[in-house]
Amino acid sequence: MGHEFERILITGAAGNLGDHLRRGLGPLARRLRLLDVRPMGEAAPGEELVQCDLSDREAAFAAIRGCDAIVHFAGHPREMSFDEILRDTLPASYNVYEGARQFGVKRVVYASSIHAVGFHPVEDVPDTRAPHRPDTFYGLTKTFTEDLASLYWDKWGIESVCLRICSCFPEPADRRMLWSWLSYSDCLRLTEAALLAPRVGFSVIYGTSDNARAAVSNARASHIGYRPRDSADVHAPRVLSRIDRDDPASTAARVVGGGFAAAPHPDDPR
Amino acid sequence: MGHEFERILITGAAGNLGDHLRRGLGPLARRLRLLDVRPMGEAAPGEELVQCDLSDREAAFAAIRGCDAIVHFAGHPREMSFDEILRDTLPASYNVYEGARQFGVKRVVYASSIHAVGFHPVEDVPDTRAPHRPDTFYGLTKTFTEDLASLYWDKWGIESVCLRICSCFPEPADRRMLWSWLSYSDCLRLTEAALLAPRVGFSVIYGTSDNARAAVSNARASHIGYRPRDSADVHAPRVLSRIDRDDPASTAARVVGGGFAAAPHPDDPR
Amino acid sequence: MGHEFERILITGAAGNLGDHLRRGLGPLARRLRLLDVRPMGEAAPGEELVQCDLSDREAAFAAIRGCDAIVHFAGHPREMSFDEILRDTLPASYNVYEGARQFGVKRVVYASSIHAVGFHPVEDVPDTRAPHRPDTFYGLTKTFTEDLASLYWDKWGIESVCLRICSCFPEPADRRMLWSWLSYSDCLRLTEAALLAPRVGFSVIYGTSDNARAAVSNARASHIGYRPRDSADVHAPRVLSRIDRDDPASTAARVVGGGFAAAPHPDDPR
Amino acid sequence: MGHEFERILITGAAGNLGDHLRRGLGPLARRLRLLDVRPMGEAAPGEELVQCDLSDREAAFAAIRGCDAIVHFAGHPREMSFDEILRDTLPASYNVYEGARQFGVKRVVYASSIHAVGFHPVEDVPDTRAPHRPDTFYGLTKTFTEDLASLYWDKWGIESVCLRICSCFPEPADRRMLWSWLSYSDCLRLTEAALLAPRVGFSVIYGTSDNARAAVSNARASHIGYRPRDSADVHAPRVLSRIDRDDPASTAARVVGGGFAAAPHPDDPR
Amino acid sequence: MGHEFERILITGAAGNLGDHLRRGLGPLARRLRLLDVRPMGEAAPGEELVQCDLSDREAAFAAIRGCDAIVHFAGHPREMSFDEILRDTLPASYNVYEGARQFGVKRVVYASSIHAVGFHPVEDVPDTRAPHRPDTFYGLTKTFTEDLASLYWDKWGIESVCLRICSCFPEPADRRMLWSWLSYSDCLRLTEAALLAPRVGFSVIYGTSDNARAAVSNARASHIGYRPRDSADVHAPRVLSRIDRDDPASTAARVVGGGFAAAPHPDDPR
Amino acid sequence: MGHEFERILITGAAGNLGDHLRRGLGPLARRLRLLDVRPMGEAAPGEELVQCDLSDREAAFAAIRGCDAIVHFAGHPREMSFDEILRDTLPASYNVYEGARQFGVKRVVYASSIHAVGFHPVEDVPDTRAPHRPDTFYGLTKTFTEDLASLYWDKWGIESVCLRICSCFPEPADRRMLWSWLSYSDCLRLTEAALLAPRVGFSVIYGTSDNARAAVSNARASHIGYRPRDSADVHAPRVLSRIDRDDPASTAARVVGGGFAAAPHPDDPR
Repeated sequence: MGHEFERILITGAAGNLGDHLRRGLGPLARRLRLLDVRPMGEAAPGEELVQCDLSDREAAFAAIRGCDAIVHFAGHPREMSFDEILRDTLPASYNVYEGARQFGVKRVVYASSIHAVGFHPVEDVPDTRAPHRPDTFYGLTKTFTEDLASLYWDKWGIESVCLRICSCFPEPADRRMLWSWLSYSDCLRLTEAALLAPRVGFSVIYGTSDNARAAVSNARASHIGYRPRDSADVHAPRVLSRIDRDDPASTAARVVGGGFAAAPHPDDPR
Repeated sequence: MGHEFERILITGAAGNLGDHLRRGLGPLARRLRLLDVRPMGEAAPGEELVQCDLSDREAAFAAIRGCDAIVHFAGHPREMSFDEILRDTLPASYNVYEGARQFGVKRVVYASSIHAVGFHPVEDVPDTRAPHRPDTFYGLTKTFTEDLASLYWDKWGIESVCLRICSCFPEPADRRMLWSWLSYSDCLRLTEAALLAPRVGFSVIYGTSDNARAAVSNARASHIGYRPRDSADVHAPRVLSRIDRDDPASTAARVVGGGFAAAPHPDDPR
Repeated sequence: MGHEFERILITGAAGNLGDHLRRGLGPLARRLRLLDVRPMGEAAPGEELVQCDLSDREAAFAAIRGCDAIVHFAGHPREMSFDEILRDTLPASYNVYEGARQFGVKRVVYASSIHAVGFHPVEDVPDTRAPHRPDTFYGLTKTFTEDLASLYWDKWGIESVCLRICSCFPEPADRRMLWSWLSYSDCLRLTEAALLAPRVGFSVIYGTSDNARAAVSNARASHIGYRPRDSADVHAPRVLSRIDRDDPASTAARVVGGGFAAAPHPDDPR
Repeated sequence: MGHEFERILITGAAGNLGDHLRRGLGPLARRLRLLDVRPMGEAAPGEELVQCDLSDREAAFAAIRGCDAIVHFAGHPREMSFDEILRDTLPASYNVYEGARQFGVKRVVYASSIHAVGFHPVEDVPDTRAPHRPDTFYGLTKTFTEDLASLYWDKWGIESVCLRICSCFPEPADRRMLWSWLSYSDCLRLTEAALLAPRVGFSVIYGTSDNARAAVSNARASHIGYRPRDSADVHAPRVLSRIDRDDPASTAARVVGGGFAAAPHPDDPR
Repeated sequence: MGHEFERILITGAAGNLGDHLRRGLGPLARRLRLLDVRPMGEAAPGEELVQCDLSDREAAFAAIRGCDAIVHFAGHPREMSFDEILRDTLPASYNVYEGARQFGVKRVVYASSIHAVGFHPVEDVPDTRAPHRPDTFYGLTKTFTEDLASLYWDKWGIESVCLRICSCFPEPADRRMLWSWLSYSDCLRLTEAALLAPRVGFSVIYGTSDNARAAVSNARASHIGYRPRDSADVHAPRVLSRIDRDDPASTAARVVGGGFAAAPHPDDPR
Repeated sequence: MGHEFERILITGAAGNLGDHLRRGLGPLARRLRLLDVRPMGEAAPGEELVQCDLSDREAAFAAIRGCDAIVHFAGHPREMSFDEILRDTLPASYNVYEGARQFGVKRVVYASSIHAVGFHPVEDVPDTRAPHRPDTFYGLTKTFTEDLASLYWDKWGIESVCLRICSCFPEPADRRMLWSWLSYSDCLRLTEAALLAPRVGFSVIYGTSDNARAAVSNARASHIGYRPRDSADVHAPRVLSRIDRDDPASTAARVVGGGFAAAPHPDDPR
């Protein structure tokens, strides 16, 4: 037997995360097709580079044709205006799913975000079936795409795993990240698990490392088979000694979305 | 004491439902502002007519200014393409909520739909906290707007009641409507209750009449105070004798969304 | 349009309940086939009488052939020995479901019983998804047949409604029946609803009248569309004045199965 | 058969509610023993009057001796200091339950209060198993006595029904009472049901009339058999026209406890 | 202090699992009584061999007499006809429980199976309180015996732990077993835990090793104290490279029962 | 950055647990203020000793003034009379919380107990949202103080973590402790986690070590970040071999409170 997949499309391949996935997912497929609006350097053996804008439907479809899985990580984790999501993010999501339908892709692994449920209080420890509570327009792109994925599963049989990535950075940078941190290596493990699980239907899973502190629960997502190996705990002494605690009554401390939930409306003057 | 509201904006006022609301909601406000892209006839005393397209932000904001409640019923219950929702429905929803924020409107009553959760099986009897499972792109506009409403409540304190209207028609027209039917009068009662409830935060409620058959549950929405007075049951003998049963294994019979869940992709050739 | 069904088979047709069903279900089908091991009197127009033992596979199959629905009420609500259930009740249940599969019957309405869950405490108010807790070998025949029905639905698409009949008698005879009583007329209504509901898959519903006291909950069975019209409440003054209360600490008062839960092992000497 | 009880003790019999109970519960017992620290007028036939302070253990025990049920309604629904609850309310509760244990009383019906769970948000519609969230020291006396009742049930077999009375007044006096109102007649019905239910163990039930608006749920308390006959709905037009709405963002509008949840600390200077 | 038990009866002792239990459970009891319909070789010191058919009541009772615990593993994990279960499996189960009752055995550890709940979808991750959804007649023997165990606990105080064994084999043989595999050693640990837990009442627990992938949840069975030490994960590279994935839309991939759920009716011609 | 806290008050500092906390919590604060009614030896550098009775309000307030966190461990884990809890324990709890409010303490870590929920059956594995079921008057002091903490959080913004300590002893002393044991070191880890968690609101967490057997669940308390390192499992062979099993039907074996749940009324003659 050979590779698990013939060709995996990775969108957002020029980003930090995309770069890790590019280096890590190779063994799973005969070829990786890498897509970004930015340049992605030289193609390694087995790689195909497609520089285009995912919100361009024709280009997106051309990139999807011939792939049997999509790892959709394009997009930046920052607040943005409604006009921006309407122009870029929502069309990109549609193009991915509709492209998958038209060209026979069977599974999409989507980089959703904790900000899809960011207004749940920390002490509620929301699980993967908690209702959407987006904390930003950015979060709203995630809830929209999750619902789109749900529709494409229920109606057209495209499987999805929505990875609600919490805080994927080189190191935990503040106290909140002591629970929300996801190492790059664990992000890769999570993506691999989502690609390899025999059956996912429409599934949601939170992306954090094996941190003692956990303000979200994957209890109902164990079928994905994600087992993190890194932990924010080794960074705790440094973080606790250098970074002050937030006021526990502040919005940023109160809810799992952290500072995003306290971000102003993108159109408001700063 | 005078009227409950100073000025209620009703969007979609030229539609069948909108017309009932126009005639019924008058006593709640000093003035009704009626909005539709279509003509709405003559203005009665206390009425203000605004003919415009809600997806036109400037026009929408102008219509919202001066209102203290919005009853947002614009839109047609039919499947539509992604490009259409991107151009019309999503911007209209944003304009309503962002207008409410900018001009101090405190409560929005939104005509969501059963199609926001249309893929839940009938025998699961989903309640108002069941996860989104849109059955169409139309349903996806409803899940998007519900999530938008959630964001505007959590972040900016705009209250919303999302009415998941099931089948609002003059009479039940098929066997599914024996559970899903909402009479026009009960739709008015539901809207009134949503406007008058002292506190709603972000709430969801299903819109059906008092039918013996019920494939959705309002058990967790009783704080709205909706009590229907009509019932599909009186129409049951006629419907049962004239209209054949669906195959219980068909998608249309299996899920609460009915035929919408079986509708083809809007871009596919018929 | 004509009758809802071509031919309904009613098993246990010579019993009290069976007799009510025989008289009430006529309008739903072109023909009623009545089956019992006991004589059933004269056949009325539209009736077919089959006197046989349901545990006789060949006879059972012959009776099922040609029917498009089965109302399976055969069996007596009394404790019995394991050998008896092994010889009679379990084979009868199998024959009904396997016959349905072989001869294309699409829906079975099964007279299950409160004794399938009889050991749940009254103050827990079990709903239709509470785990099985049979209180007798009689109750065990009900849990077995419910599980058999579940298998035939999941695997072979035979729909079932399991009616967990509580206390179907002419009148409430003791204090427990003030919550558990089901009038004969309401039992008929319940059976009709189970036959007419557009989609049931595998469903369970409790059978009681509209009693103020309710120790079981149909909150998750509203899709069946059962609406009782009788009530034990009108009998309450008589029952309360004539019949003493049980010790609330006794097994019979403690659990929803009542006296059955306190019944001795059928093989024990009395 | 004669009376349901030999002798019921009603505490708080001189209050408004107590007076209704005194006139209504007579038929359930051969004798009513009425207790209050205030004078209770003349004893009617079948009545025994005991004027004493329930926090006096000896007096309380003397009053309990010879009774077979206690309806414990003593206490005023108002905020009070910790020192006051320590001196009066908590000892009174203990004396009632310990007296019940020592003198063989088998059931206590206790007037608990919505303020035992007053900090649950209205839109959460808490049911009878929602965790305690007292909103005042008054509410804390209710949670304490409920827990005491739980202990006396689990350990010594004294049954209790804790009636979480919402707003028991002659008429709904504000918008909140449109959901929380309990008529005096319905309060009597509720108490009767709690006394007559065959088995209650440790049960909790909310006390409201049959109001369309309902911010609490008795779905899991139906075994008590309480069916209200009055409704705040008939008072709604008057209340809505005369009394302004609260700010939905205020604590009083936000939570089921209403104004109590906004009450200051009793020791703070006003 | 000496052995935990005086004499443990192991049924199915000649099977693969039975053989492991025979070698592993010795230290827990003064004597092991081994039962199988097949020969079991030589008796080691402390062993007693009983070759008989468990469906023979007299023989079964004779084997049970004198034991204080039963480890009931008899039966083969394969689909079988209804007539076969009626003749063999159900009587064997009854004989075990009724024998336990008659001869004072206090605890039964029963080898139930994942096939008792085999039709739950993988992505639902059913826990130990999920409703029965048998996937075969084999699964139906498991649901029946679990309900029998429930009855014998509720009514006659015989404790049971039902081990829902998933895939007990020397090594994971396909992709599904990457979540469902239970090593022989972990099966022994699970059985030991079930025997040693101070209090089990009627408990259910899934039997898998410590696999990263988990499509069932023991979150509510932690009181048994089972802690697996083996893991399918070490076998994952081999399995993934040699064995193709199933179609995720196939029944075998969709539900936790795997291929059993897709097995034809045992009486159908192959 | 310096210490996490300026001054932590530890009550009950002369007890076994208090002594561990005294030695372990030093690094978290610039100063530790130690309080007990008993002598506490010599003050180490950074320590302040306050010998007083917490039920003396003036003394308690004086001790609290100047602290920014309170670790409230005063009190002995033994059954006591109602009069005793009224005189000592309840006033002490009030003084701690009211002192926190008056002097600006933002977080309290409270040594609650398993006996707050002691009557839940072992096989129910109660989580941190299970209703109160106190098993003693001792347990009642814990439910009261938890409710008091809830009130002070909801109304005055004082955060609390209620540690439901199970069995904190040098070693597991009986079979129940194989699940309920909490080592002194893990108790310290638990307290540290409760102090350091960025946001706790009102939270509850069970205190046990990392034992294979677990009759309570912290699944919904993972935001606290407690990760035990000790385990009762290493003590299991000794305990199992030396200490007989309880009768599984006894109250002490049946419920999580163990022997406390079987303790007699403190006023009863022994």
